[in-house]
Amino acid sequence: MFEFTVTAKNNRARAGVFTTPHGDLLTPVFAPVGTQATVKTLTPEHLKDINATLVLSNTYHLYLRPGDELVRDMGGLHKFMQWHRPMLTDSGGFQVFSLAQTRKIDDDGVTFKSHIDGSTHRFTPEKSIAIQENLGADIIMAFDECSDPNDHAYSKLAMERTHRWAERSLKAQTRADQALFGIIQGGIQPDLRAESAKFIASLDTPGIAIGGLSVGETKEEMHAMLEVIEPFFPENKPRYLMGVGTPEDLINGVARGIDIFDCVLPTRLARHNSAFSPEGRLNLMNAIFARDERPIDETCDCYACKTFTRAYIRHLIVAKELLAGTLLSIHNLRALIRLMEQIKVYLAAGIFEEQMPFLLEIWKNNASRKMGNSEWEVA
Amino acid sequence: MFEFTVTAKNNRARAGVFTTPHGDLLTPVFAPVGTQATVKTLTPEHLKDINATLVLSNTYHLYLRPGDELVRDMGGLHKFMQWHRPMLTDSGGFQVFSLAQTRKIDDDGVTFKSHIDGSTHRFTPEKSIAIQENLGADIIMAFDECSDPNDHAYSKLAMERTHRWAERSLKAQTRADQALFGIIQGGIQPDLRAESAKFIASLDTPGIAIGGLSVGETKEEMHAMLEVIEPFFPENKPRYLMGVGTPEDLINGVARGIDIFDCVLPTRLARHNSAFSPEGRLNLMNAIFARDERPIDETCDCYACKTFTRAYIRHLIVAKELLAGTLLSIHNLRALIRLMEQIKVYLAAGIFEEQMPFLLEIWKNNASRKMGNSEWEVA
Repeated sequence: MFEFTVTAKNNRARAGVFTTPHGDLLTPVFAPVGTQATVKTLTPEHLKDINATLVLSNTYHLYLRPGDELVRDMGGLHKFMQWHRPMLTDSGGFQVFSLAQTRKIDDDGVTFKSHIDGSTHRFTPEKSIAIQENLGADIIMAFDECSDPNDHAYSKLAMERTHRWAERSLKAQTRADQALFGIIQGGIQPDLRAESAKFIASLDTPGIAIGGLSVGETKEEMHAMLEVIEPFFPENKPRYLMGVGTPEDLINGVARGIDIFDCVLPTRLARHNSAFSPEGRLNLMNAIFARDERPIDETCDCYACKTFTRAYIRHLIVAKELLAGTLLSIHNLRALIRLMEQIKVYLAAGIFEEQMPFLLEIWKNNASRKMGNSEWEVA
Repeated sequence: MFEFTVTAKNNRARAGVFTTPHGDLLTPVFAPVGTQATVKTLTPEHLKDINATLVLSNTYHLYLRPGDELVRDMGGLHKFMQWHRPMLTDSGGFQVFSLAQTRKIDDDGVTFKSHIDGSTHRFTPEKSIAIQENLGADIIMAFDECSDPNDHAYSKLAMERTHRWAERSLKAQTRADQALFGIIQGGIQPDLRAESAKFIASLDTPGIAIGGLSVGETKEEMHAMLEVIEPFFPENKPRYLMGVGTPEDLINGVARGIDIFDCVLPTRLARHNSAFSPEGRLNLMNAIFARDERPIDETCDCYACKTFTRAYIRHLIVAKELLAGTLLSIHNLRALIRLMEQIKVYLAAGIFEEQMPFLLEIWKNNASRKMGNSEWEVA
């Protein structure tokens, strides 16, 4: 069921098609994040309008609320949230480590307390897969452990546990209509990343995910890790770089052979009044936009840019009107999806590598705020 | 420019067409409220989808933020918020009396402090009209004073001032492309309401508004006032009952000759998780909806009802996802607009009076919460 066909190659960068039960997924692709079975402030119609294809949702959150069994009984995640294109769920591993109030890891699994009500829960590889089977996404993840990327000893332990958990995750799978990806770990340790890539590739899962990056390391460290693992990737499997990222990260990721990305950044920035643009990241609350009759980005084709002025969006922000977050979410997501569409065109034409410096030039200054623009920062 | 043609009459109830610079307005009509140049949580596309025609915005709020001169310089309210169908602004009078921190009324006008930052401002009839001309709505209001409806002496004073202010408002008007409505006041005092109706009708404005109702009096008192003033209404002018209301209020208002209504209730209820329905007003946060696979209202044709289950909307509410407010706003506004469409059909067919008891039966229990449904209440 889960065929991946590479349709164009420009050195390590590739375009492809991944077949899923909810349609063909053209790669490279950026997936908006719908943590709680909704991409914050947007309807599925908004997502279709910006040509979103893959949407990610979070196992940890849905397990806690409304509960994976409720989602299953309501017909699964696609039907529940009315998103009928491909979906992906993570394993819950990263959230247990980053969100849960306390956690106790052993070789069998993790016991943690809910960040919502402090109640105690336990995830094992088997439990993560059972939850993900109840949710019913097209692409699901093996249960994994994130480590402090700089700590070699802990990264080795976590990687080895991740490998054993990947084998158990595969054994636990009962549904044939979900593509279960193994996850490469290993912090920023080249030897561990190489070992992990080799091991996960050997499992022959229908795709391979790269976890534990974009967690505080430098861009150079992230790129170095991608280059270490790239030789071990099978050609005919999609590669998913988890939790990345900025426009620059997507361009650099594609150049290093990545096919799938996801990140909360575009929607989180939107809720902090911030917009991607070729002028650099803009904070639309800034008083300089009070009478600015231009759209957020004159080159953008999204509903917000085709319809509203910066002056209006700034007014909505200042007046604390929620429509501001909706419009900025539409714009920021469309900016990344449009970037991926552009990259697909370049890949098909065989000119991605020569266009890459221009793309990086256009989208520079979007990874962090524009200098002097305001005092905000987004975690 | 502002012709009003009655197209059907059923006793005192009427259907009509009001010509405006932004198109013909079919009455009776319910106007969603976009206080700060946005109907909270909705895009103009959502409003078009539910067949909204007239949208109201608030002079007091827009004067304070972003400022009426800014709105004028951005091309006026229609262009600023991208609503290209008819619009209406109120005079600011009601908000000065209900929202401003302090106010000092004299015969010339009102001095008040902003509820946003405490700064001091002054509204006069001339100022209200100047602001409304900057905003540029199709229908604008004379500056008026609301009174405690039970206080005959104060209601008389406020009514007399409202009459003088109506004359000054008319004199201050410079734009010919805005229909300036006079406002009837007089509390719940039949003698004052009759006097006010007679006076405002004598001004020969292109429409007549009824202010100072739905401010705490009983339904019976409101109906009595509508019946007192109805005989003084000119046939060929639209009648606008300000700030009303519930499904029941709309049905009863039409029966008493009202053509135009507006109210924040549908969007405010939405933000309190509450939905109009033929089952009575529902609080979708209620646990009984956790696994309810029905739409909010099986008879409704809105996007929320055609797409999502109560179970999903309840999940969004419990998870504090803003999409809940968007979906409930769409539904509640569509419920009132659909009710008005149904009434127009009945009026055209000459059967409104015989259908009215059935409409009241269907929409009963929507004026307040369903008993035992939960502990919430909406101010």
